[in-house]
Amino acid sequence: MPKQIDHEKRREQIAEATWRVISERGMEGATVRNIAAEAGLSLGALRHYFSTQDELLAYSLKLVKERATARIREIISLDLPPREKFIKTILELVPTNQEKMAEMEVWFAFTAYFRHKPGGLDAQYDGIYPGLQKLMDYAEQSGLLPANIDKEMETERLYALVDGLALHAYLEPQRLDGPKVERVLIHHLSALMATED
Amino acid sequence: MPKQIDHEKRREQIAEATWRVISERGMEGATVRNIAAEAGLSLGALRHYFSTQDELLAYSLKLVKERATARIREIISLDLPPREKFIKTILELVPTNQEKMAEMEVWFAFTAYFRHKPGGLDAQYDGIYPGLQKLMDYAEQSGLLPANIDKEMETERLYALVDGLALHAYLEPQRLDGPKVERVLIHHLSALMATED
Repeated sequence: MPKQIDHEKRREQIAEATWRVISERGMEGATVRNIAAEAGLSLGALRHYFSTQDELLAYSLKLVKERATARIREIISLDLPPREKFIKTILELVPTNQEKMAEMEVWFAFTAYFRHKPGGLDAQYDGIYPGLQKLMDYAEQSGLLPANIDKEMETERLYALVDGLALHAYLEPQRLDGPKVERVLIHHLSALMATED
Repeated sequence: MPKQIDHEKRREQIAEATWRVISERGMEGATVRNIAAEAGLSLGALRHYFSTQDELLAYSLKLVKERATARIREIISLDLPPREKFIKTILELVPTNQEKMAEMEVWFAFTAYFRHKPGGLDAQYDGIYPGLQKLMDYAEQSGLLPANIDKEMETERLYALVDGLALHAYLEPQRLDGPKVERVLIHHLSALMATED
Protein backbone atom coordinates (compact mmCIF):
# COMPACT_ATOMS: atom_id res chain seq x y z
CA MET A 1 0.00 0.00 0.00
CA PRO A 2 2.37 2.75 -1.13
CA LYS A 3 -0.32 5.41 -0.87
CA GLN A 4 -0.78 4.71 2.83
CA ILE A 5 2.98 4.81 3.35
CA ASP A 6 3.27 8.11 1.51
CA HIS A 7 0.54 9.56 3.69
CA GLU A 8 2.35 8.56 6.88
CA LYS A 9 5.69 9.72 5.53
CA ARG A 10 4.22 13.09 4.68
CA ARG A 11 2.75 13.39 8.19
CA GLU A 12 6.22 12.75 9.59
CA GLN A 13 7.73 15.42 7.33
CA ILE A 14 5.12 17.90 8.55
CA ALA A 15 5.91 16.97 12.17
CA GLU A 16 9.61 17.59 11.48
CA ALA A 17 8.74 20.99 9.99
CA THR A 18 6.76 21.67 13.17
CA TRP A 19 9.84 20.88 15.31
CA ARG A 20 11.93 23.33 13.29
CA VAL A 21 9.33 26.09 13.66
CA ILE A 22 9.03 25.51 17.43
CA SER A 23 12.78 25.38 17.80
CA GLU A 24 13.19 28.72 16.02
CA ARG A 25 10.13 30.66 17.18
CA GLY A 26 8.72 28.88 20.21
CA MET A 27 5.16 27.62 20.58
CA GLU A 28 3.80 31.12 19.89
CA GLY A 29 5.17 30.80 16.37
CA ALA A 30 3.80 27.30 15.77
CA THR A 31 0.80 28.45 13.76
CA VAL A 32 -0.67 26.27 11.02
CA ARG A 33 0.33 28.97 8.53
CA ASN A 34 4.01 28.99 9.61
CA ILE A 35 4.21 25.21 9.69
CA ALA A 36 2.70 24.89 6.20
CA ALA A 37 5.27 27.39 4.89
CA GLU A 38 8.15 25.53 6.57
CA ALA A 39 6.90 22.22 5.12
CA GLY A 40 6.52 23.78 1.66
CA LEU A 41 2.78 23.05 1.56
CA SER A 42 -0.32 25.13 1.02
CA LEU A 43 -2.69 25.52 3.94
CA GLY A 44 -5.21 23.35 2.08
CA ALA A 45 -2.68 20.58 1.55
CA LEU A 46 -1.65 20.69 5.22
CA ARG A 47 -5.30 20.35 6.28
CA HIS A 48 -5.45 17.18 4.22
CA TYR A 49 -3.01 15.61 6.71
CA PHE A 50 -4.08 17.32 9.95
CA SER A 51 -7.52 18.79 10.35
CA THR A 52 -6.71 20.90 13.45
CA GLN A 53 -3.67 22.59 14.94
CA ASP A 54 -4.08 20.57 18.14
CA GLU A 55 -4.04 17.31 16.20
CA LEU A 56 -0.84 18.40 14.44
CA LEU A 57 0.87 19.43 17.69
CA ALA A 58 -0.15 16.23 19.49
CA TYR A 59 1.19 14.12 16.62
CA SER A 60 4.46 16.08 16.53
CA LEU A 61 5.00 15.48 20.22
CA LYS A 62 4.11 11.79 19.92
CA LEU A 63 6.69 11.41 17.17
CA VAL A 64 9.45 12.88 19.41
CA LYS A 65 8.62 10.26 21.99
CA GLU A 66 8.47 7.41 19.46
CA ARG A 67 11.85 8.23 17.98
CA ALA A 68 13.51 8.44 21.39
CA THR A 69 11.85 5.18 22.48
CA ALA A 70 13.03 3.44 19.31
CA ARG A 71 16.64 4.50 19.95
CA ILE A 72 16.47 3.21 23.51
CA ARG A 73 14.91 -0.11 22.44
CA GLU A 74 17.78 -0.55 20.01
CA ILE A 75 20.39 -0.12 22.73
CA ILE A 76 18.55 -2.50 25.06
CA SER A 77 18.49 -5.15 22.33
CA LEU A 78 22.27 -4.98 21.87
CA ASP A 79 24.48 -7.70 23.29
CA LEU A 80 26.44 -5.59 25.77
CA PRO A 81 27.81 -6.09 29.30
CA PRO A 82 25.16 -4.89 31.84
CA ARG A 83 27.25 -1.97 33.07
CA GLU A 84 27.75 -0.63 29.55
CA LYS A 85 24.10 -1.15 28.64
CA PHE A 86 22.96 0.67 31.80
CA ILE A 87 25.19 3.69 31.13
CA LYS A 88 24.48 3.82 27.37
CA THR A 89 20.72 3.74 27.90
CA ILE A 90 20.76 6.57 30.41
CA LEU A 91 23.02 8.66 28.18
CA GLU A 92 20.31 8.37 25.53
CA LEU A 93 18.04 10.48 27.78
CA VAL A 94 20.23 13.59 27.73
CA PRO A 95 20.98 15.85 24.75
CA THR A 96 24.49 14.85 23.66
CA ASN A 97 24.00 15.60 19.95
CA GLN A 98 22.08 17.91 17.61
CA GLU A 99 19.18 15.53 17.03
CA LYS A 100 18.51 15.03 20.73
CA MET A 101 18.95 18.75 21.40
CA ALA A 102 16.21 19.56 18.89
CA GLU A 103 13.91 16.98 20.52
CA MET A 104 14.57 18.49 23.95
CA GLU A 105 13.78 21.98 22.67
CA VAL A 106 10.44 20.74 21.34
CA TRP A 107 9.78 18.85 24.54
CA PHE A 108 10.28 21.82 26.85
CA ALA A 109 8.24 24.09 24.60
CA PHE A 110 5.33 21.62 24.67
CA THR A 111 5.59 21.12 28.42
CA ALA A 112 5.32 24.85 29.09
CA TYR A 113 2.55 25.24 26.49
CA PHE A 114 0.31 22.42 27.71
CA ARG A 115 0.83 23.21 31.38
CA HIS A 116 -2.23 25.44 31.61
CA LYS A 117 -4.44 23.86 28.95
CA PRO A 118 -7.48 21.96 30.19
CA GLY A 119 -6.67 18.26 30.10
CA GLY A 120 -3.05 19.27 29.51
CA LEU A 121 0.00 17.09 29.29
CA ASP A 122 0.68 14.51 31.98
CA ALA A 123 4.13 15.17 33.46
CA GLN A 124 4.85 11.46 33.12
CA TYR A 125 3.95 11.48 29.43
CA ASP A 126 7.63 11.28 28.47
CA GLY A 127 7.94 7.98 30.36
CA ILE A 128 11.39 8.86 31.73
CA TYR A 129 10.62 8.24 35.39
CA PRO A 130 9.12 4.72 34.94
CA GLY A 131 11.91 4.02 32.43
CA LEU A 132 14.53 4.90 35.03
CA GLN A 133 12.77 2.74 37.61
CA LYS A 134 13.07 -0.22 35.26
CA LEU A 135 16.71 0.57 34.53
CA MET A 136 17.52 0.74 38.23
CA ASP A 137 15.83 -2.67 38.69
CA TYR A 138 17.94 -3.98 35.82
CA ALA A 139 21.12 -2.57 37.40
CA GLU A 140 20.22 -4.13 40.74
CA GLN A 141 19.47 -7.54 39.23
CA SER A 142 22.73 -7.38 37.28
CA GLY A 143 24.64 -6.81 40.52
CA LEU A 144 25.73 -3.30 39.53
CA LEU A 145 24.42 -1.57 42.64
CA PRO A 146 25.68 -1.81 46.23
CA ALA A 147 23.43 -3.97 48.40
CA ASN A 148 22.38 -1.30 50.88
CA ILE A 149 21.34 1.30 48.32
CA ASP A 150 18.09 3.28 48.75
CA LYS A 151 16.79 2.56 45.27
CA GLU A 152 13.78 4.89 45.36
CA MET A 153 15.95 7.80 46.51
CA GLU A 154 18.63 7.05 43.92
CA THR A 155 16.03 6.84 41.14
CA GLU A 156 14.67 10.24 42.16
CA ARG A 157 18.18 11.70 42.27
CA LEU A 158 19.10 10.28 38.86
CA TYR A 159 15.82 11.50 37.37
CA ALA A 160 16.44 15.03 38.65
CA LEU A 161 20.03 14.95 37.37
CA VAL A 162 18.99 13.75 33.89
CA ASP A 163 16.31 16.44 33.48
CA GLY A 164 18.44 19.14 35.11
CA LEU A 165 21.28 18.46 32.67
CA ALA A 166 18.79 18.45 29.79
CA LEU A 167 17.31 21.77 30.94
CA HIS A 168 20.71 23.42 31.27
CA ALA A 169 22.00 22.08 27.95
CA TYR A 170 18.82 23.51 26.39
CA LEU A 171 19.13 26.92 28.07
CA GLU A 172 22.92 27.24 27.82
CA PRO A 173 24.20 25.10 24.95
CA GLN A 174 27.49 27.06 24.84
CA ARG A 175 28.39 26.49 28.48
CA LEU A 176 27.07 22.94 28.79
CA ASP A 177 27.75 21.07 25.57
CA GLY A 178 27.09 17.40 24.78
CA PRO A 179 30.47 15.99 25.88
CA LYS A 180 30.23 17.84 29.22
CA VAL A 181 26.71 16.51 29.86
CA GLU A 182 28.06 13.04 29.15
CA ARG A 183 31.02 13.46 31.54
CA VAL A 184 28.83 14.63 34.42
CA LEU A 185 26.35 11.79 33.94
CA ILE A 186 29.04 9.10 33.68
CA HIS A 187 30.68 10.50 36.82
CA HIS A 188 27.35 10.24 38.64
CA LEU A 189 26.64 6.69 37.47
CA SER A 190 30.15 5.55 38.42
CA ALA A 191 29.70 7.01 41.92
CA LEU A 192 26.24 5.40 42.15
CA MET A 193 27.58 1.96 41.30
CA ALA A 194 30.41 2.37 43.82
CA THR A 195 28.29 3.79 46.66
CA GLU A 196 28.92 2.45 50.10
CA ASP A 197 27.16 3.93 53.09
CA MET B 1 8.23 59.90 52.64
CA PRO B 2 5.18 57.74 53.25
CA LYS B 3 3.82 58.45 49.77
CA GLN B 4 6.93 56.97 48.15
CA ILE B 5 6.72 53.92 50.42
CA ASP B 6 3.05 53.44 49.57
CA HIS B 7 3.87 53.58 45.89
CA GLU B 8 6.55 50.88 46.21
CA LYS B 9 4.34 48.75 48.45
CA ARG B 10 1.52 48.95 45.92
CA ARG B 11 3.89 47.91 43.13
CA GLU B 12 4.85 44.86 45.20
CA GLN B 13 1.19 43.99 45.75
CA ILE B 14 0.61 44.18 42.01
CA ALA B 15 3.63 41.94 41.40
CA GLU B 16 2.22 39.42 43.87
CA ALA B 17 -1.12 39.52 42.05
CA THR B 18 0.83 38.88 38.83
CA TRP B 19 2.43 35.78 40.39
CA ARG B 20 -0.98 34.43 41.35
CA VAL B 21 -2.35 34.99 37.84
CA ILE B 22 0.67 33.30 36.23
CA SER B 23 0.50 30.43 38.69
CA GLU B 24 -3.17 29.82 37.88
CA ARG B 25 -3.36 30.59 34.16
CA GLY B 26 0.19 30.60 32.80
CA MET B 27 1.85 33.46 30.93
CA GLU B 28 -0.95 33.42 28.34
CA GLY B 29 -3.32 34.54 31.10
CA ALA B 30 -1.03 37.28 32.43
CA THR B 31 -2.81 40.12 30.65
CA VAL B 32 -2.92 43.60 32.17
CA ARG B 33 -6.70 43.20 32.46
CA ASN B 34 -6.49 39.93 34.44
CA ILE B 35 -3.75 41.26 36.70
CA ALA B 36 -5.70 44.44 37.46
CA ALA B 37 -8.75 42.34 38.40
CA GLU B 38 -6.64 40.07 40.64
CA ALA B 39 -5.08 43.11 42.34
CA GLY B 40 -8.53 44.72 42.80
CA LEU B 41 -7.55 47.75 40.72
CA SER B 42 -9.01 49.48 37.69
CA LEU B 43 -6.96 49.36 34.50
CA GLY B 44 -6.34 53.08 34.86
CA ALA B 45 -5.05 52.67 38.42
CA LEU B 46 -2.76 49.81 37.36
CA ARG B 47 -1.31 52.00 34.58
CA HIS B 48 -0.40 54.55 37.23
CA TYR B 49 2.08 52.01 38.64
CA PHE B 50 3.23 50.26 35.45
CA SER B 51 2.89 51.91 32.07
CA THR B 52 3.40 48.73 30.00
CA GLN B 53 2.80 45.01 30.42
CA ASP B 54 6.48 44.31 29.81
CA GLU B 55 7.49 46.70 32.59
CA LEU B 56 5.08 44.95 34.95
CA LEU B 57 6.32 41.47 34.03
CA ALA B 58 9.98 42.46 34.32
CA TYR B 59 9.35 43.98 37.76
CA SER B 60 7.45 40.87 38.91
CA LEU B 61 10.32 38.64 37.91
CA LYS B 62 12.89 40.94 39.53
CA LEU B 63 10.92 40.79 42.77
CA VAL B 64 11.02 36.96 42.79
CA LYS B 65 14.80 37.14 42.52
CA GLU B 66 15.13 39.83 45.20
CA ARG B 67 13.05 37.91 47.73
CA ALA B 68 15.00 34.69 47.17
CA THR B 69 18.30 36.55 47.40
CA ALA B 70 17.22 38.21 50.65
CA ARG B 71 16.37 34.84 52.21
CA ILE B 72 19.76 33.43 51.20
CA ARG B 73 21.62 36.50 52.53
CA GLU B 74 19.86 36.01 55.85
CA ILE B 75 21.02 32.39 56.15
CA ILE B 76 24.58 33.33 55.20
CA SER B 77 24.62 35.99 57.90
CA LEU B 78 23.62 33.48 60.60
CA ASP B 79 26.21 32.14 63.03
CA LEU B 80 26.10 28.47 62.02
CA PRO B 81 28.67 25.67 61.62
CA PRO B 82 29.91 25.64 57.97
CA ARG B 83 28.35 22.28 57.15
CA GLU B 84 24.92 23.40 58.32
CA LYS B 85 25.23 26.75 56.57
CA PHE B 86 26.24 25.03 53.30
CA ILE B 87 23.29 22.62 53.39
CA LYS B 88 20.74 25.22 54.54
CA THR B 89 21.72 27.67 51.79
CA ILE B 90 21.40 25.07 49.04
CA LEU B 91 18.04 23.90 50.41
CA GLU B 92 16.85 27.47 49.94
CA LEU B 93 17.21 26.98 46.15
CA VAL B 94 14.62 24.21 45.88
CA PRO B 95 10.85 24.47 46.46
CA THR B 96 10.33 22.97 49.92
CA ASN B 97 7.34 25.14 50.85
CA GLN B 98 4.36 26.94 49.30
CA GLU B 99 6.11 30.30 48.95
CA LYS B 100 9.08 28.86 47.09
CA MET B 101 6.81 26.68 44.95
CA ALA B 102 4.92 29.77 43.77
CA GLU B 103 8.21 31.50 42.94
CA MET B 104 9.37 28.46 40.97
CA GLU B 105 6.12 28.38 39.02
CA VAL B 106 6.57 32.03 38.05
CA TRP B 107 10.20 31.43 37.24
CA PHE B 108 9.58 28.56 34.82
CA ALA B 109 6.71 30.39 33.16
CA PHE B 110 8.93 33.43 32.57
CA THR B 111 11.82 31.31 31.31
CA ALA B 112 9.63 29.63 28.68
CA TYR B 113 7.96 32.95 27.78
CA PHE B 114 11.12 34.99 27.30
CA ARG B 115 13.02 32.21 25.52
CA HIS B 116 11.96 33.36 22.06
CA LYS B 117 11.59 37.09 22.68
CA PRO B 118 14.24 39.32 21.10
CA GLY B 119 16.72 40.28 23.82
CA GLY B 120 15.10 37.59 25.98
CA LEU B 121 16.09 36.41 29.40
CA ASP B 122 19.68 35.43 30.10
CA ALA B 123 19.76 31.86 31.38
CA GLN B 124 22.07 33.02 34.15
CA TYR B 125 19.67 35.76 35.24
CA ASP B 126 18.63 33.75 38.28
CA GLY B 127 22.23 33.73 39.54
CA ILE B 128 22.04 30.15 40.76
CA TYR B 129 25.10 28.84 38.92
CA PRO B 130 27.52 31.56 40.11
CA GLY B 131 25.91 31.28 43.56
CA LEU B 132 26.65 27.56 43.67
CA GLN B 133 30.23 28.19 42.54
CA LYS B 134 30.71 30.51 45.51
CA LEU B 135 29.09 27.99 47.86
CA MET B 136 31.38 25.24 46.64
CA ASP B 137 34.38 27.53 47.23
CA TYR B 138 33.05 28.18 50.73
CA ALA B 139 32.65 24.44 51.36
CA GLU B 140 36.18 23.80 50.14
CA GLN B 141 37.70 26.56 52.26
CA SER B 142 35.77 25.27 55.29
CA GLY B 143 37.29 21.82 54.78
CA LEU B 144 33.93 20.20 53.97
CA LEU B 145 35.02 18.69 50.65
CA PRO B 146 37.44 15.81 50.03
CA ALA B 147 40.82 17.02 48.75
CA ASN B 148 40.74 15.28 45.38
CA ILE B 149 37.29 16.47 44.34
CA ASP B 150 36.65 17.77 40.79
CA LYS B 151 34.98 20.99 41.90
CA GLU B 152 33.83 22.16 38.48
CA MET B 153 32.21 18.80 37.76
CA GLU B 154 30.58 18.67 41.19
CA THR B 155 29.22 22.20 40.81
CA GLU B 156 27.69 21.25 37.46
CA ARG B 157 26.19 18.09 38.96
CA LEU B 158 24.76 19.94 41.96
CA TYR B 159 23.34 22.67 39.70
CA ALA B 160 21.59 20.08 37.51
CA LEU B 161 20.24 18.28 40.58
CA VAL B 162 18.88 21.49 42.15
CA ASP B 163 17.09 22.58 38.97
CA GLY B 164 15.94 19.04 38.12
CA LEU B 165 14.35 18.68 41.56
CA ALA B 166 12.76 22.12 41.20
CA LEU B 167 11.39 21.20 37.76
CA HIS B 168 9.92 17.92 38.97
CA ALA B 169 8.43 19.43 42.13
CA TYR B 170 6.81 22.03 39.88
CA LEU B 171 5.46 19.50 37.36
CA GLU B 172 4.49 16.80 39.87
CA PRO B 173 3.89 18.38 43.29
CA GLN B 174 1.93 15.30 44.44
CA ARG B 175 4.68 12.81 43.72
CA LEU B 176 7.63 14.98 44.71
CA ASP B 177 6.69 17.09 47.71
CA GLY B 178 8.86 19.48 49.72
CA PRO B 179 10.12 16.97 52.33
CA LYS B 180 11.12 14.49 49.60
CA VAL B 181 13.03 17.18 47.67
CA GLU B 182 14.83 17.99 50.91
CA ARG B 183 15.73 14.34 51.60
CA VAL B 184 17.16 13.79 48.12
CA LEU B 185 19.23 16.97 48.27
CA ILE B 186 20.58 16.26 51.76
CA HIS B 187 21.49 12.72 50.65
CA HIS B 188 23.40 14.18 47.70
CA LEU B 189 25.24 16.76 49.78
CA SER B 190 26.19 14.15 52.40
CA ALA B 191 27.60 11.89 49.66
CA LEU B 192 29.41 14.87 48.13
CA MET B 193 31.10 15.76 51.41
CA ALA B 194 32.12 12.14 51.95
CA THR B 195 33.35 11.49 48.39
CA GLU B 196 36.55 9.54 48.03
CA ASP B 197 37.81 8.50 44.62
